[in-house]
Amino acid sequence: MGFSQDTLPDKQQIKEARKLIRPYIHRTPVMTCSTLDGMTGSRLFFKCENFQKGGAFKFRGASNAVMGLSDSQLFRGVATHSSGNHAQALSLAARMRGITAHIVMPESAPKIKVSAVNNYGGKIRFCAPTLSDREATLEKVVKETGAMEVHPYNDYRIIAGQASAAAEIYEDIAEPDILLVPVGGGGLLSGSILSTKYFSPKTLVYAAEPEKADDAYQSFRQGRFIPSEKPQTIADGLRTSLGSKTYPIIMEGVKDILTVSEESIICAMHLIWERMKIIVEPSAAVPLACIFDNPGPFRNKRVAIILSGGNVDLARLPWLEEPGSIH
Amino acid sequence: MGFSQDTLPDKQQIKEARKLIRPYIHRTPVMTCSTLDGMTGSRLFFKCENFQKGGAFKFRGASNAVMGLSDSQLFRGVATHSSGNHAQALSLAARMRGITAHIVMPESAPKIKVSAVNNYGGKIRFCAPTLSDREATLEKVVKETGAMEVHPYNDYRIIAGQASAAAEIYEDIAEPDILLVPVGGGGLLSGSILSTKYFSPKTLVYAAEPEKADDAYQSFRQGRFIPSEKPQTIADGLRTSLGSKTYPIIMEGVKDILTVSEESIICAMHLIWERMKIIVEPSAAVPLACIFDNPGPFRNKRVAIILSGGNVDLARLPWLEEPGSIH
Repeated sequence: MGFSQDTLPDKQQIKEARKLIRPYIHRTPVMTCSTLDGMTGSRLFFKCENFQKGGAFKFRGASNAVMGLSDSQLFRGVATHSSGNHAQALSLAARMRGITAHIVMPESAPKIKVSAVNNYGGKIRFCAPTLSDREATLEKVVKETGAMEVHPYNDYRIIAGQASAAAEIYEDIAEPDILLVPVGGGGLLSGSILSTKYFSPKTLVYAAEPEKADDAYQSFRQGRFIPSEKPQTIADGLRTSLGSKTYPIIMEGVKDILTVSEESIICAMHLIWERMKIIVEPSAAVPLACIFDNPGPFRNKRVAIILSGGNVDLARLPWLEEPGSIH
Repeated sequence: MGFSQDTLPDKQQIKEARKLIRPYIHRTPVMTCSTLDGMTGSRLFFKCENFQKGGAFKFRGASNAVMGLSDSQLFRGVATHSSGNHAQALSLAARMRGITAHIVMPESAPKIKVSAVNNYGGKIRFCAPTLSDREATLEKVVKETGAMEVHPYNDYRIIAGQASAAAEIYEDIAEPDILLVPVGGGGLLSGSILSTKYFSPKTLVYAAEPEKADDAYQSFRQGRFIPSEKPQTIADGLRTSLGSKTYPIIMEGVKDILTVSEESIICAMHLIWERMKIIVEPSAAVPLACIFDNPGPFRNKRVAIILSGGNVDLARLPWLEEPGSIH
């Protein structure tokens, strides 16, 4: 069971991932909103991964990686460097399996993220707030503990786990015209592309990305890998660059990648809160913002959207902050 | 079809109300949250009326009143004095039926409430911010237009409509031990008591009320009607007094009425936002606050809770306000 780290997940492997994680994840609902349909001229179906365990779709991939661990690996645990939703998801999945998750975080990480990882039982190792120190610290932790590194997105086990979200959509909504997904490192987008190919091949997959972190957009337009440089977007889940495993899947499978302004992200997030009465984080509002900023491809279409997460500091809402104070 | 204004709704009439409003209302979901179960030691089932049309359960009663109007009444429309969720609900139901809703509101009403009623097509008539002027203005409007007054809660059509929320719960959750409902004017509580009697008679109905608007609690304890005096609670939907039609239903049918502090309401509201990723207004958080403040009756019980609404000014969140600045 499970699959090699080096093979693109096939249809059967995504089915197996779904089966493996089913007892642990929430089957999240698909919501609709007639007001937002009216505003966009589209028929929208929102897959509510903000209701997923750990507050984001990340738990799907993390639980696929953790639940698929071999017995020999189990007692050594897992490790990652992340201060975001992947860290929480991996900590929670590890706790469910009764093993340790070592989480490398920069000393500068917001308290709310530190306490979230603590709440889920992750074992935090702080490092200096540079990518090189994060990587060096993670390497050290892995060396000391024998823990298996679980990368947030550049890992086929993660991609296969994230694929389960789109697979569930296609069970609930017959053949939407479009599936619209936010893109950061590309784990969710890659998994969505694979599930679409296997389970709803007529559906077109679009990706939405902040203008201020547009590495996937630039890569797609220029046909070569371009990393994210100093991304300043409020959509903190989408600041990462594509990886070597997500890049080729996306270049082959995405219909288009479209970008959105920061103002549109905040406006879309506020609309979802106000109209749907659900809490989404800025990254999760990027697809709706994308429809407002680029209405053409979506007009009069049935569009499924993955609301990727709902982890927000409720004391710091973007519509109440000073402009420019992105944190 | 329909029933007299003067008869307590029987089982058949509540079934008819459900049938009448079914095409117009949302069948709202029941959500669970393992974190809140762990914190309370109860098994909680949250009926999400914050997802109801108009953002609150009030649309159930309003649509029952409006959809049940006789042809001769139709062209004259409906009227009420309210600045809260009932005003929005009545406006929306009237618009769906293609008739006018006359809404009497104090000039001092917050802009966000005025614009919500405007958005739903209600015809606003402003008055001075006193109960006597509200009543006088409403009487004038009714006289001028022939509109039918639809009281927010002291009306059996409203009570029968609100009863549909509990009736739906009992279809989704077999015989919960307890149904816990917030109480303001008592329309939702009365309807819940009737549905429980007819559809799940072994379930006990408890009511939760803010300490600072404890007229129902005082009435129940003293066995006589005591009106609400200068209520100062943040739970703006629960500041009203019981009515002549809701009082006797509640006195006979409620197992107990328990009160909660303002601090607990804000804390419970924050927990629901943070943990369930859904938006509820302060009034809707009163039942969960009640379990924290009075855990005894609920421990190890299966408790259904009605989350009554989700209409909040997103620019004014209670955990970000100065203490004491209730508006």
